[in-house]
Amino acid sequence: MVRQLRVAAAQVGRIDRGTPREEVIARLNALLEQAAAQKVKLAVFPETTFTTFFPRYWMEDEAEIASYFETEPVEGISHCASVKAFFDKAMELSIDVAIGYGEETSEGRRYNTASYVDSSGRTVGKYRKIHLPGTFEPFSKEQGVTNQLEKKLFAPGDLGFTAFRAPSLRAACGGDKSPIVGQLICNDRRWAEGWRVYGLQGVELMCVGYNTTAWAPQLWGIDPSSMTREEAYADAMFHHKLVCQANAYTNSTSLITSARCGNDDGLHPLISGSMIVDPEGHIVAENTTEGDELVVADIDLDACQQGKSKTFAFAKHRRIEMYGLICSQTGVVEPEEPAE
Amino acid sequence: MVRQLRVAAAQVGRIDRGTPREEVIARLNALLEQAAAQKVKLAVFPETTFTTFFPRYWMEDEAEIASYFETEPVEGISHCASVKAFFDKAMELSIDVAIGYGEETSEGRRYNTASYVDSSGRTVGKYRKIHLPGTFEPFSKEQGVTNQLEKKLFAPGDLGFTAFRAPSLRAACGGDKSPIVGQLICNDRRWAEGWRVYGLQGVELMCVGYNTTAWAPQLWGIDPSSMTREEAYADAMFHHKLVCQANAYTNSTSLITSARCGNDDGLHPLISGSMIVDPEGHIVAENTTEGDELVVADIDLDACQQGKSKTFAFAKHRRIEMYGLICSQTGVVEPEEPAE
Repeated sequence: MVRQLRVAAAQVGRIDRGTPREEVIARLNALLEQAAAQKVKLAVFPETTFTTFFPRYWMEDEAEIASYFETEPVEGISHCASVKAFFDKAMELSIDVAIGYGEETSEGRRYNTASYVDSSGRTVGKYRKIHLPGTFEPFSKEQGVTNQLEKKLFAPGDLGFTAFRAPSLRAACGGDKSPIVGQLICNDRRWAEGWRVYGLQGVELMCVGYNTTAWAPQLWGIDPSSMTREEAYADAMFHHKLVCQANAYTNSTSLITSARCGNDDGLHPLISGSMIVDPEGHIVAENTTEGDELVVADIDLDACQQGKSKTFAFAKHRRIEMYGLICSQTGVVEPEEPAE
Repeated sequence: MVRQLRVAAAQVGRIDRGTPREEVIARLNALLEQAAAQKVKLAVFPETTFTTFFPRYWMEDEAEIASYFETEPVEGISHCASVKAFFDKAMELSIDVAIGYGEETSEGRRYNTASYVDSSGRTVGKYRKIHLPGTFEPFSKEQGVTNQLEKKLFAPGDLGFTAFRAPSLRAACGGDKSPIVGQLICNDRRWAEGWRVYGLQGVELMCVGYNTTAWAPQLWGIDPSSMTREEAYADAMFHHKLVCQANAYTNSTSLITSARCGNDDGLHPLISGSMIVDPEGHIVAENTTEGDELVVADIDLDACQQGKSKTFAFAKHRRIEMYGLICSQTGVVEPEEPAE
């Protein structure tokens, strides 16, 4: 059986601190038009797609910080005036979209969120980023220095790693089973735990948007003189691909991963690396530019069965009685030094 | 601070079904001599090093099966007559060794085991393989067909993923802290759970021996006509490197991984791929042959601190309240298909 589906990573290039949403959405809608022309059924957009990646900046103006969040619910047939034009376009073109944005709830809680909105305008999956990287305090308050203030700006996600069906794609992939979809955001892709929780729900298609800085020595804990900017870019890309390919393979899932990339405000670049990965961990399509770009591939959802039924047949091979520390211990406890 | 240590992966080539242990040990001891000449302090040998990788063969003769197991304890200053000459040589040359073998206990239980024996002849770490791959029944009883009968031949390991200190290396790496070491065997390296349990114990150096067949369509669940032998070899190598590099990176640990490789009995080859990987996931040394070969590198144990203190500072970033399924659910439970 072949449950084939045409999908895309919608990579988005430079967005500056002051770029208005209307300008961004015009670019996103151009990507949607390209997707429709190529008969794409699902397009995955990056993390915090509607704005610059604001946690990189030290900001003292509360009004500016607030401006990066959507304060109306970005749900279904969107009520959220600021981004409605994007969801309207996706629905008009009959494309499912997964897209990340800053979310502010009516209670004032702020999350780094991704919503999966199907082609009928229904939100069928929502994820709030669980592994928030960075620090609560800035490395520097100087402008132009790369901070990573997600721990300060967002609450950790409270919706779990919850896989869902995408029934709008059932007919498109010619099967009687809707695809099982999961979402992660950026740094989450480095943490095998989230992937495995999705794997345990039989995930067939992962959607992962990200912003990954190509130069952040303080974040990485390295001496800035130990690496050139070019080496740092290459290393950030190496790590990105490594964890994406390994976790797709070990959970036997297809993956669509989409970058916000480019030199926002002329600062240190964010890496590209948008790609579509098959359930054996092979890259089947990837970006060729550092700007807005649609990366398209046909994936076969049933290709997951090779791994799921053999090498990674969890029910046959996992030994949960040996995994206790993973769920009971957050940090490191080292073995003691033996007596002489 | 630099806690530098010279280590080696001792790759071992073809060993046939009837090759006597004495012949194998002569080759292993030649590798130990090379290691000593290069001032190596720790040499990591493969899985089931003293014999061919016998779970590939369908065997009906119980006496032959029994002959692949060490029935005396392979402990400390080894009491095990069949392999004593190997441990004696390592002690004579003052090299720590980690080595895999078939273990039969005095109660007759059989395990796929690796022991870490330090240069004074003490067993400071012992691991029994937890993720046994393959099947309880043969794919075929014909000779020359690749089976994978580990589930039939071994009991699952019962010693957990238990990190330990290697005090014999404390002086060698010029520090006041002994290295924290962990062991996995072959298929375990594909399972992030074992790596993470070691990571949660602050592991700095992982020792992983393996036998990985380059052609096993029934084991992989693929149509034999879908891939050439060369493509299959390349794919097995790709997956090996992918999981080793990703899990070293995401647990901020150095890794020494050592292959039993070559065309045992003129059958389908086992892949090579012996390598030393740094805590950022980079390969720092790797094999160049498909036979007996010592792969040597100097590693810096303190290089683990880059990852352990920043990107993978577990205490700051892990969210164990979201990981429950990993320890509570063995197999897959799919989300339900929504109502129309």
